[in-house]
Amino acid sequence: MNTNGKFFSFNNNFTLIDHQLFMLISYVRFLILMIKASKRSQGISYAIRDVVLPAKELEKKGIEVLHLNIGDPNKYDFDTPQHMKDTLYKVANEGYNGYAPSEGYLELRDAIVNREHKRNNIDYSSDDICITTGVTESLQILLNASLNISDELLIPGPTYPQYTLITRFNDAEPIAYRCIEEEGWQPDVNDIRKKISKRTKGIVVINPNNPTGALYSKKVIKEILDIAGEYQVPVISDEIYDDITFDGKQYATATLAKDVPIITFNGFSKVYLVPGWRIGYVMFHHSGELDEVQDAFMRIARSRLCANSVCQLACIQALKGPQDHIEKVNQKLRKRRDFSYKRLNEIEGISTAKPDGAFYIFPKIEAMEKRLWKDDKEFVLDLLHEAHVLVVHGSGFCSTYGKGHFRAVILPQVETLEKAFDKLEQFMKKKLSKIS
Amino acid sequence: MNTNGKFFSFNNNFTLIDHQLFMLISYVRFLILMIKASKRSQGISYAIRDVVLPAKELEKKGIEVLHLNIGDPNKYDFDTPQHMKDTLYKVANEGYNGYAPSEGYLELRDAIVNREHKRNNIDYSSDDICITTGVTESLQILLNASLNISDELLIPGPTYPQYTLITRFNDAEPIAYRCIEEEGWQPDVNDIRKKISKRTKGIVVINPNNPTGALYSKKVIKEILDIAGEYQVPVISDEIYDDITFDGKQYATATLAKDVPIITFNGFSKVYLVPGWRIGYVMFHHSGELDEVQDAFMRIARSRLCANSVCQLACIQALKGPQDHIEKVNQKLRKRRDFSYKRLNEIEGISTAKPDGAFYIFPKIEAMEKRLWKDDKEFVLDLLHEAHVLVVHGSGFCSTYGKGHFRAVILPQVETLEKAFDKLEQFMKKKLSKIS
Repeated sequence: MNTNGKFFSFNNNFTLIDHQLFMLISYVRFLILMIKASKRSQGISYAIRDVVLPAKELEKKGIEVLHLNIGDPNKYDFDTPQHMKDTLYKVANEGYNGYAPSEGYLELRDAIVNREHKRNNIDYSSDDICITTGVTESLQILLNASLNISDELLIPGPTYPQYTLITRFNDAEPIAYRCIEEEGWQPDVNDIRKKISKRTKGIVVINPNNPTGALYSKKVIKEILDIAGEYQVPVISDEIYDDITFDGKQYATATLAKDVPIITFNGFSKVYLVPGWRIGYVMFHHSGELDEVQDAFMRIARSRLCANSVCQLACIQALKGPQDHIEKVNQKLRKRRDFSYKRLNEIEGISTAKPDGAFYIFPKIEAMEKRLWKDDKEFVLDLLHEAHVLVVHGSGFCSTYGKGHFRAVILPQVETLEKAFDKLEQFMKKKLSKIS
Repeated sequence: MNTNGKFFSFNNNFTLIDHQLFMLISYVRFLILMIKASKRSQGISYAIRDVVLPAKELEKKGIEVLHLNIGDPNKYDFDTPQHMKDTLYKVANEGYNGYAPSEGYLELRDAIVNREHKRNNIDYSSDDICITTGVTESLQILLNASLNISDELLIPGPTYPQYTLITRFNDAEPIAYRCIEEEGWQPDVNDIRKKISKRTKGIVVINPNNPTGALYSKKVIKEILDIAGEYQVPVISDEIYDDITFDGKQYATATLAKDVPIITFNGFSKVYLVPGWRIGYVMFHHSGELDEVQDAFMRIARSRLCANSVCQLACIQALKGPQDHIEKVNQKLRKRRDFSYKRLNEIEGISTAKPDGAFYIFPKIEAMEKRLWKDDKEFVLDLLHEAHVLVVHGSGFCSTYGKGHFRAVILPQVETLEKAFDKLEQFMKKKLSKIS
């Protein structure tokens, strides 16, 4: 009999009566009608956050885990510019805590128009911009507004996972085009040409790229635009990391577009160091071809009310205030990129291309060939449990072109990166020694 | 010829050459391939915000419009408690500008657990709560997670429009059950029983109700729960206005549920006066029946990252800090409700039930019988253009049980309400005099 007065106790006092009670309850639970989840939801998993669950289990046991999994600069030694925080407080005190316009505050859209003019030499109208809850919501609304059943979207392989997820959610088919690891993960334009079809409703470009850190060359962007023009499909250009580059220059797709309609996603999370504020935006650049899609976008946007009011207003200050933090961020990241690139290539069984933007590196697990792990997810979980280093499995970004890789962030300070890569090296040595 | 050097000028200088150029450009635009919006997006319109567009047109001309359309207390003489604003600044300065956990900060979920225990005598686990970008996102994710094609959702008629929209978006069918105007818009339980079927995947309850302001009686909630229990479907209970009541007491559905699984939506927008912060939440209350749906909900939640980090943390303070603003809000609203109820019933051609919660009133346009307007939307636009008062057409909330009505907010100060209702009265007199 249970001695501590509780109904159940799964310790040594667990007795026969407890067991019978437990079985009875299990049986009753079995009788409960389980309400089914939707079919649509069954495939949904988000590698970047799903791997956090087993890491949390370790941390509950008091084990320190080195997190190289989430692209959140604010978790490391990067901080939001002070004038943005001050403006946040100012506007909250001025009473801007009510709903914002569905399309976003005009002053913020005007500031974005201004940035686009100065940075990219593009003249948007503020009516062609809509502020959303991160780029995630821009993407959700755009695909809701434009995809029908059996439509296809050409997506980089590997890609940021939401492009695949949200395309499927709209009963459409994401088609991964190859990016070439040997060329620093530049898109394979021939593969795009091979895979484009009548069903294609858009070509997605992520530049700088998440998860590979590739910065796309002007030539590649122009070639993609040529194909888009030929097939009369818009290009969806995700430029959330646009100002985070190390050696090369980032070209906005719309700058090079000529007569191809472009839908650009951007936001404040990365360049202005406020991922938790969830302020992104979409910009429509076209000569009327996207009128219907843009109208549908705005109707959906009105039905979901608005993006966060106070953070929107503080982001006006982000664009109008000093910009000097950006170069400082890039200087830090350049060093960490250089270190990560060098150090990872020194590790037996690992090789990596050199990223030139964003804050990711996407190494290849060369040792996968030795069949030490069933797949890259097993590698990641093995690394987590044995070495306590958390990265994200490459197949979470593309089952074809991402598999056999992992994504690590290059955000931590060099000492932390060193610690993590040392652990990775020991882990690889141990694993490889077993089979040699 | 255009004299001012611009290509086009649509003034008196508009000449033959301008005209030819204009026709040419129109023709070229006609040749542009228009990219189609998705089928799914075609029905989307959101009455509450769609009527804002014609109002804006008037305002551009310098005409003052009295807005009684949007349920945003912060647009009137209600303000966010100061300690919430102070906490917002504190947490931004402490560096909480990065991503939050997908399920929301544990401390906020714990504070909600606490509130539920104290207010409703329900013991939730923090794992059964997820913080979302407003109730809108809770609803989106829940319906994504639970509805399949041809499923049905029983929804109050009239309802908050997003229930209809998002159900349709998931290829499912919203079925409106009647609410009884003569009984202050209490749900018609017999109608629910008549309409429930094997396809029904949930019964939606909005209490206090938007758009009617009805506060549901304990008896009605229990009767709805009985039907739900009999048919083994969950109840989806939207309680975002729970503490905004004038005479009666609000009963949380889960408190009365016994063995019926309940999914409750709530948030900080209304009771804590921060609609622009977009912090809502969902709570799952069940004995295992909803395990699969809850798991799908959480997987989708992880794929969309998180709700706003700094506002989440400031909402902990909302629950832990002083609560005295709530009674002050209710006192103000009670007066405005009393005035609106009395004044609207004095107007010829208008009658109204008495709201007992939230901040809306849903009067009947008795004069619709005289066929002065094609429908309630025409009435609303006519009222806007002639009297410069903006309300929302009832059919925007339910084409069956909402038509022939309009929704007005009771949020403005009595002087403003008086001005608006005076204008409405003059408008009605003028219209009715024409046919008498």
